[in-house]
Amino acid sequence: MTIKERLAGVRREMARRGVDAYIVPTEDFHGSEYVGAYFKVREYLSGFTGSAGTLLVMMQQAALWTDGRYFLQAKEQLNGSGIDLMCAGESGVPTLADYLKQHLRERAVVGFDGRTVSSRFVKKLSDKLQGKQVTFAGGEDLADPVWTERPRMACEPVWELEESFAGSTREDKISAVRGKMAEQGADALLLSALDEIAWLLNLRGGDIQYTPVFLSYLLLRRTDALLFVQGEAVGSELREKLCEAGVTLTPYGAIEQELERIPAGQTVWFDDTKVNERLAGSLPVSVKRLEKPSPVERLKAVKTPAEQRNMEQAHIRDGVAVTRFIRWVKENVGTQKITELGAAKKLEEFRKEEEGYLCPSFAPIIAYGAHGAVVHYEPTLETDAVLLPKSFCLADTGGHYWQGTTDITRTIALGALTEEEKRMYTLALRGHLNLGAAVFLQGTGGQNLDVLARGPLWENGLDYRHGTGHGVGYLLNVHEGPQRFHWRTLPESDSVPIEEGMVISNEPGLYMEGRFGIRHENLLLCCKAEKTEYGQFLKFKNLTMVPFDREAIVPSLMTERELTLLNHYHKIVYDTLAPHLSEEEGAWLLEAVREIKRQQ
Amino acid sequence: MTIKERLAGVRREMARRGVDAYIVPTEDFHGSEYVGAYFKVREYLSGFTGSAGTLLVMMQQAALWTDGRYFLQAKEQLNGSGIDLMCAGESGVPTLADYLKQHLRERAVVGFDGRTVSSRFVKKLSDKLQGKQVTFAGGEDLADPVWTERPRMACEPVWELEESFAGSTREDKISAVRGKMAEQGADALLLSALDEIAWLLNLRGGDIQYTPVFLSYLLLRRTDALLFVQGEAVGSELREKLCEAGVTLTPYGAIEQELERIPAGQTVWFDDTKVNERLAGSLPVSVKRLEKPSPVERLKAVKTPAEQRNMEQAHIRDGVAVTRFIRWVKENVGTQKITELGAAKKLEEFRKEEEGYLCPSFAPIIAYGAHGAVVHYEPTLETDAVLLPKSFCLADTGGHYWQGTTDITRTIALGALTEEEKRMYTLALRGHLNLGAAVFLQGTGGQNLDVLARGPLWENGLDYRHGTGHGVGYLLNVHEGPQRFHWRTLPESDSVPIEEGMVISNEPGLYMEGRFGIRHENLLLCCKAEKTEYGQFLKFKNLTMVPFDREAIVPSLMTERELTLLNHYHKIVYDTLAPHLSEEEGAWLLEAVREIKRQQ
Repeated sequence: MTIKERLAGVRREMARRGVDAYIVPTEDFHGSEYVGAYFKVREYLSGFTGSAGTLLVMMQQAALWTDGRYFLQAKEQLNGSGIDLMCAGESGVPTLADYLKQHLRERAVVGFDGRTVSSRFVKKLSDKLQGKQVTFAGGEDLADPVWTERPRMACEPVWELEESFAGSTREDKISAVRGKMAEQGADALLLSALDEIAWLLNLRGGDIQYTPVFLSYLLLRRTDALLFVQGEAVGSELREKLCEAGVTLTPYGAIEQELERIPAGQTVWFDDTKVNERLAGSLPVSVKRLEKPSPVERLKAVKTPAEQRNMEQAHIRDGVAVTRFIRWVKENVGTQKITELGAAKKLEEFRKEEEGYLCPSFAPIIAYGAHGAVVHYEPTLETDAVLLPKSFCLADTGGHYWQGTTDITRTIALGALTEEEKRMYTLALRGHLNLGAAVFLQGTGGQNLDVLARGPLWENGLDYRHGTGHGVGYLLNVHEGPQRFHWRTLPESDSVPIEEGMVISNEPGLYMEGRFGIRHENLLLCCKAEKTEYGQFLKFKNLTMVPFDREAIVPSLMTERELTLLNHYHKIVYDTLAPHLSEEEGAWLLEAVREIKRQQ
Repeated sequence: MTIKERLAGVRREMARRGVDAYIVPTEDFHGSEYVGAYFKVREYLSGFTGSAGTLLVMMQQAALWTDGRYFLQAKEQLNGSGIDLMCAGESGVPTLADYLKQHLRERAVVGFDGRTVSSRFVKKLSDKLQGKQVTFAGGEDLADPVWTERPRMACEPVWELEESFAGSTREDKISAVRGKMAEQGADALLLSALDEIAWLLNLRGGDIQYTPVFLSYLLLRRTDALLFVQGEAVGSELREKLCEAGVTLTPYGAIEQELERIPAGQTVWFDDTKVNERLAGSLPVSVKRLEKPSPVERLKAVKTPAEQRNMEQAHIRDGVAVTRFIRWVKENVGTQKITELGAAKKLEEFRKEEEGYLCPSFAPIIAYGAHGAVVHYEPTLETDAVLLPKSFCLADTGGHYWQGTTDITRTIALGALTEEEKRMYTLALRGHLNLGAAVFLQGTGGQNLDVLARGPLWENGLDYRHGTGHGVGYLLNVHEGPQRFHWRTLPESDSVPIEEGMVISNEPGLYMEGRFGIRHENLLLCCKAEKTEYGQFLKFKNLTMVPFDREAIVPSLMTERELTLLNHYHKIVYDTLAPHLSEEEGAWLLEAVREIKRQQ
């Protein structure tokens, strides 16, 4: 079926039900960043494969909104589909709400699968369409009858994360969360974010590629809990263990009925930015709603001491693999044919040699030359470039280990570099080093520190159009909140202090369209610094242990302090990795981290 | 009358009306930071003279909340009064709301003069006391019958600020504000902040010391405006001019009646954090309330090109006066007796020599030695210290000129300094220089940049317990919003981007209790930097033109960049001031700004 035929199919279903506009977002029923094949409705209907975007189908027109990372890709993929590309954020481009306001008749019906949009999304859309007397119809998935060869919903086995890795039992975690519920006077907490459920129950799954979570909802009550999950996914032994912790298994699809039965007057806590509209709508009106971020979000973000120790170990193993990869690619480029996909495969081989390694934590980005300037480039068979002994190879990859999750970017010089390439590499590295060395008072948030990374670029009229850092889950989502580095605070969420035990990435970059891209990414662990009369100070410890590329650095562009920071980091990298390397590899690393002096 | 007698008097009035708790804040009816003598009720009832604090009188107890700047002073002044000191923000100290929650009976009556508390304050207090079924009584000033020798309300003449100084006519300003009202669908805008009214009408007054404003309210409607003002304060010529601009004079006290008469269905815009509870309560329930910051706040903060040019001129004149003062104090300390008050008088004399100078913009802070560590120290006859030829004299002063308002702090070395004094001076200066040199994308707010000033201190476990900068009015309040430098965002107000044309102070400090204090303050004007594909960049221009003290600087503690910034600033100071100085003074300044090199 062509895209046009698929859209025609959806329009038939819309006409049958009197729906004027049908919204298809990217999310699954849980607001996941990455989704399983069953949920890729937007991709099926539009042909656009990017990881972010919203499709709107109306009777006479269709449009797709996506962000700057995907403008080029979307333009190509939407070509001939009859779907207009809406470059979100560009001047003159209406938002979805504005577009609807403009094109909808009075008393129109706006449809969507209410499980794929958050409760907050619908509230905000409703506010913006005030005056149009619009009706929302969220009860059906209109793509389902059209998508005849739709993949089945994933149902991989659910497995247990041992306490030695998790650092805390599910009983202790549940009781900590119940403490927060009591503080807020909540009778029940409704969780729908898959990583929150997995974290709370010390369970993992395999329903989303690269993300070891399982499809489920959890209704945590004061003395018991209902886990809504596909029954086939949970073995009998695990079922018993959960039972002992007061968690009863219930069919995945039974959530709405269960919510409808909550007694009047009870208070249900849920995050309306994460819980889908269908669930929120299933709560009786007589139930009190406490709509705020779930307490699991912060608890999960602050790693336990065991998780912290484990993550340090995972990063040493990952550092060995990535360092071997860097050496391999630098030594072999030009003499043997290496493509982006080939390099990704090789890196995966190095990682697989490491004890405790499970799988990649996201689709590897190995981007050569100009591909590096495409922020979320993923090599495919069609784009797979051959690496040449010049310019940069940007490698943004990560792994899941029993000991935690890694996410690292190195920009590797493959041969002679231009002055511009070196200058940009150095400028972005300055920001990376300055942010990583921050010392700050407890209470400081990512919006306060972001300028340390961007400052050296802003002074030169440069910037990167993405955040500077995100939280990282423990054998969970590679991107998690609530902490982040960005100077712009999100309208949806208050700025959150960075706390001891949080892990956050530090990844400034520079992207020269059509030429090359640079990104330097380490994961940082927030630790205590000194405590004085002014309060508790915090600092970061680099978890990532991989050298930067001294061939790309222009020391004269760096301050003495920045050079000291770099040399110091490199010394730690060497001391940490060397015991795990062969003699030959150790010698290579020693040279790679040789002290860089101001005057060379 | 003793404080105890005054409190007994208030309690009699409370008992007569069945009031259980009576709140006395510091503010006048307009939320002013500094208030006229008539409004100093809290000071009268408690004996505490600080510029911030809230008194609570209950039948059996009384308590006063103030902040860290005033703990010592309040402790002394409240001694023997029977009033408990509540050190706000210290751990274990309840807030006013928590205290009331704890001590009030069910169905208690909480009183206050509804003109001295904001509408938002009462709403929040009401939220926090939910469940107690408290009644609020805001109709009366219970201190008035007790305060028999109360000063009269000020009623100084209102005068006009010429267009050449204001840079815009009142007609143009009013029409800009009406444009904002139309955007928001507001039929009327209620202004009660005195500086907003003065700015909008190009008027000034003298009802508050150091602040050229006049007691008034303004109700701006779509085609006319009512200015509520004491009639005797406005001359007939001015009255006519205002009439031409569609502004009708109405008695100051008639505001409540007028608000009560607003027709049903009209929308009234007011800032509920600034407009007092009595006014907000006078609006009929049938009137729609648009509660958000007034549009005047931002318009006033972005200086017109004429205001910008004028302020540069004012700062040259002020720079000449302060530079002369620094030379005078450094050359004469030890050989003649100079006290803090004497020094303040001398600085005022230097300022008075300058064309266009009107008066101080706030009570001068001349703080010698340990006094410098008291952040809001003001010398009095009792504390007036003699300056000795050692340690620092901290001088935080400012002036109102026809060409605008200044606010400058210099920390002056009066003789031999300890290593610690020099180190602290240098650390604080590093932050000052780094913040002043910031280049940033449009949209950046003060909370994003604050770390540039605090970073060098935080790295050393140091901090200062105040904001890094505030907006400054044009011949108006020396402290104005909405922009500010602080890493903590205020719960009451969203973070506001720093815009081209805004003036903001840059004043990091360090305070060593019992020993010395340091603060470096320049006013900065935000200007355009380059515009690139990433957007419009902004930067700061130093308005303040006064040298720092090279005798207190340890070059080896500074980065090369910081030294370059300092030397560059000093060169501009010299080139700007020299033409206005005598030959002898010029020679002194040349030496004072001599290039500082890393290795000396």
